[in-house]
Amino acid sequence: MVDQAFVATSHVLGDLFLCHARLQCDARFPWILLIPRRMGLREIEDLTPADRGRLMDEAVLAGEAVRALGEALGRPVEKLNIGALGNITPQLHLHIVGRRSDDSAWPDPVWGHGQKIAYDHDDLDLVIGTARRGLGL
Amino acid sequence: MVDQAFVATSHVLGDLFLCHARLQCDARFPWILLIPRRMGLREIEDLTPADRGRLMDEAVLAGEAVRALGEALGRPVEKLNIGALGNITPQLHLHIVGRRSDDSAWPDPVWGHGQKIAYDHDDLDLVIGTARRGLGL
Repeated sequence: MVDQAFVATSHVLGDLFLCHARLQCDARFPWILLIPRRMGLREIEDLTPADRGRLMDEAVLAGEAVRALGEALGRPVEKLNIGALGNITPQLHLHIVGRRSDDSAWPDPVWGHGQKIAYDHDDLDLVIGTARRGLGL
Repeated sequence: MVDQAFVATSHVLGDLFLCHARLQCDARFPWILLIPRRMGLREIEDLTPADRGRLMDEAVLAGEAVRALGEALGRPVEKLNIGALGNITPQLHLHIVGRRSDDSAWPDPVWGHGQKIAYDHDDLDLVIGTARRGLGL
């Protein structure tokens, strides 16, 4: 079960082998969330070693999808930022965010930075489609 | 070779199988850096799959060491924050940070937050010793 906090701020992309994947609804940054489909996890250490390997594989895949999102939006990604924080929503999740030196938060992290901006409806279709293809979904 | 930016802001803890481990010189948060001992890496995807697994193992170990640091300082860790950013120092590195709901940045990330505070000299000996033992170094 996915925490309701994710449902309110992101769109479903689909399920990978380990993780439920979602698009963060923030047009400022190409940004995918990976939520391991295991009950009661809070920390990376709560995953089995095999699942930790799967999480890395899926993080790399999500990084490729985030790069594809950046290309599709005309803002190619210069640096990936990957983070497992969970200070606000404790259910274990990984953020994969595409950054550029001209984005509004650079070089600071995106988490807790300013106000999110909704995607235009037309962009959202493009972005969700691109992210799903990037993830092989 | 470790980027000089790390040398200026952290203390050597030692070398694990994959990573060079350092203590971030900031008494506000128990905080360990892991820097894979491979040349020319910027992103997680630049690691081989085997090295990605090793990075996860060493991140879990560093999480245990960060928890031990928190205990030694009388501020037990409530949540680990793990991040690979590299917006300022591009050499691939992983942050493992112990967080508490009463720390000065909570619930925001620590990166880019406020001014660091140096450890007292006596605390530094305790902290480095605790971190090394936690990492098995």
